[in-house]
Amino acid sequence: MTLTEIGQRAKEASFALGKLSADEKKRGLYAAAEALLACQADILAANESDIEAAKKKGMPAGFVDRLLLTPDRIAGIVEGMHQVAALEDPVGEVLSMKKRPNGLLIGQMRVPMGVIGIIYEARPNVTADAFALCFKAGNAAVLRGGSDALLSNQAITKALRSGLETAGIPADAVQLLADTSRETAREFMRLNGYLDVLIPRGGAGLIKTVVENSTVPVIETGTGNCHIYVDESADFAMALDILFNAKTQRIGVCNACESVLVHEKIAKDFLPLMKKRLDEKQVEVRADAYARAVVGEFSEASEEDWGKEYLDYILSCKVVASVDEAITHINRYNTGHSETIVTKDYTSAQRFLNEVDAAAVYVNASTRFTDGFEFGFGAEIGISTQKLHARGPMGLLALTSTKYIIYGDGQIRG
Amino acid sequence: MTLTEIGQRAKEASFALGKLSADEKKRGLYAAAEALLACQADILAANESDIEAAKKKGMPAGFVDRLLLTPDRIAGIVEGMHQVAALEDPVGEVLSMKKRPNGLLIGQMRVPMGVIGIIYEARPNVTADAFALCFKAGNAAVLRGGSDALLSNQAITKALRSGLETAGIPADAVQLLADTSRETAREFMRLNGYLDVLIPRGGAGLIKTVVENSTVPVIETGTGNCHIYVDESADFAMALDILFNAKTQRIGVCNACESVLVHEKIAKDFLPLMKKRLDEKQVEVRADAYARAVVGEFSEASEEDWGKEYLDYILSCKVVASVDEAITHINRYNTGHSETIVTKDYTSAQRFLNEVDAAAVYVNASTRFTDGFEFGFGAEIGISTQKLHARGPMGLLALTSTKYIIYGDGQIRG
Repeated sequence: MTLTEIGQRAKEASFALGKLSADEKKRGLYAAAEALLACQADILAANESDIEAAKKKGMPAGFVDRLLLTPDRIAGIVEGMHQVAALEDPVGEVLSMKKRPNGLLIGQMRVPMGVIGIIYEARPNVTADAFALCFKAGNAAVLRGGSDALLSNQAITKALRSGLETAGIPADAVQLLADTSRETAREFMRLNGYLDVLIPRGGAGLIKTVVENSTVPVIETGTGNCHIYVDESADFAMALDILFNAKTQRIGVCNACESVLVHEKIAKDFLPLMKKRLDEKQVEVRADAYARAVVGEFSEASEEDWGKEYLDYILSCKVVASVDEAITHINRYNTGHSETIVTKDYTSAQRFLNEVDAAAVYVNASTRFTDGFEFGFGAEIGISTQKLHARGPMGLLALTSTKYIIYGDGQIRG
Repeated sequence: MTLTEIGQRAKEASFALGKLSADEKKRGLYAAAEALLACQADILAANESDIEAAKKKGMPAGFVDRLLLTPDRIAGIVEGMHQVAALEDPVGEVLSMKKRPNGLLIGQMRVPMGVIGIIYEARPNVTADAFALCFKAGNAAVLRGGSDALLSNQAITKALRSGLETAGIPADAVQLLADTSRETAREFMRLNGYLDVLIPRGGAGLIKTVVENSTVPVIETGTGNCHIYVDESADFAMALDILFNAKTQRIGVCNACESVLVHEKIAKDFLPLMKKRLDEKQVEVRADAYARAVVGEFSEASEEDWGKEYLDYILSCKVVASVDEAITHINRYNTGHSETIVTKDYTSAQRFLNEVDAAAVYVNASTRFTDGFEFGFGAEIGISTQKLHARGPMGLLALTSTKYIIYGDGQIRG
């Protein structure tokens, strides 16, 4: 099938999905989840072939682990689909409806996006997960997964499609690109007229490729160079707990802390305590001259360190003279993800909240909370670091659009 | 100045603008408008040079007219800036704030986009207009106008900047690209990291160029292939008034009607009346075989006509067997702008509202109302035909983003 044919099928399906009631969609999701379980043997067999091939190619253990499916993991995927099915349906709500002086009644109705393209890496769980979220919001999904997961993804998609058909829903609600070449991916990114939005899910390289090559509107999900600023008035125990949590609780995620800023008035007292606490996990601290004058064991930070997302047991550290300097530094080097101030001071807290430019700005809490589940959305398709359309953790609402509906009784424009 | 330098200055300015109070911004806009009046002689002189050059190049009369500034037109621009100044400030509102089970208080604050790029044609009024809207929403604007209006745009920008400075606001809140080459425009469209969004204002060609070349997120403002569907149950007088208004009140605009669909049960009675009414303005009707069998004078529509935005006294016309066929036809050929059903039937009205995929869907009113002022926004930066971020007429809200603000008391993630 050509990409245009896939696009046409997706568009056709999206019109049908847009008409489904919340109950019909819920039944569809349950049927798709049930089919996933029914096809478990086929899916595991396909996954075994993918795993074998990946091992033969010498892919790293972490890669192979992310590629691996087990009965437990499939049960987890199914459980996730059930959770999405149970969420409130976002479609059809009329957000506001007001009468204009000429009698026109104008409201804004929440509607599906239409067709959503997802480009992701060799993680077969994303296949079912992304489909479920797109579908719940009334969208057709066209998926382009990593080539190393192709057989697994095909088996999963086949199961999902058969489940949908059982429920009387067009199978083209989910399609998977069988051609995982780069050329086709680039063509896919230019499928304007069929794709309403494209969401890349994966590492910085993947996201950059999509942003640079796509003519379809993209939601950039992003890298996180997240800061914690320890203010002059901070409670030290709280600051240490928050920093330790944000840096070490899970190092490979975008909402982990990568840089700490410390007010100079407390640097001499705080930095040695910080060193001691971070030593528990052997965190390397790359610091400016001021901090290194306090703690000699800190290594030297280069200019490059301030902009770095380490995703490792490494933390950059800078001493600042004021909350202003902290805000300026953060707005210069951050990636617009998550930023925290630890403070007891009202004015510092409010200024930080108002002036830091990021998707999520915290007072006295770990940056690790930036997450659709932690925010109470019940789901997450990614964390947007752009300012257009959706910013921060994206739940179902981010997968919808609106349209104006207007009730008239013959109005014409004068 | 290089584009990167311009971008850096804009970003710097945007941080300052983000901190301004609503009152400070209002005073800034008044000062900029006052400066425009004070510099009127310079602006008119610069415009005269642009006009002369355009005439020498043999540009069409319509082009020259859009380029022309007069004292009256400048007064109109100033009046428009005053109106924008008087609008409610969108920045700082917290849209919802809820407590999570762990005690985190999470809200969503409306914030400026940051830096907005505007690419437009040789219409100097857009320079002041786009600046005013971007500024009111707290954004720095970088403008790239058509080369034929460069001297006018430079004189206007100079005046605006001097007015801002008088009010103690960074002049870099508005910058104009002095280099209007295509190469620089393309570089401008790839200024990620400095531009948060790019809005093209102009014809289909300009918009296409921006969508295809930009790596910065774009809001596509669009062309309108708008339909009016005259249902079986329509009030004929109302249908004729609405169609006549939508087709002929102003032909060159994106919310004008380009195609009429007529239910077959009324075609024999309605089409001759429609012909008579449209003859008042010599509208050419390009029709399908059914309609031509009723009115022999209609010319023949080709497949191409169904997708055409004429912007002229031309209308395509098709007879359909049902509201379903009307919806399917519209969803296939429309550009996602504005669509109207004329009907007395409840079910047809609701189905049309729910199932037609467009930015604005009307029952019994002219498509000409799709407009920021008519919708009560008090301003308009354009009409979005994409589904991401903003759809339909865009007022100040479309020029803002949000950020999550989170109040904690030491929460860490378990």
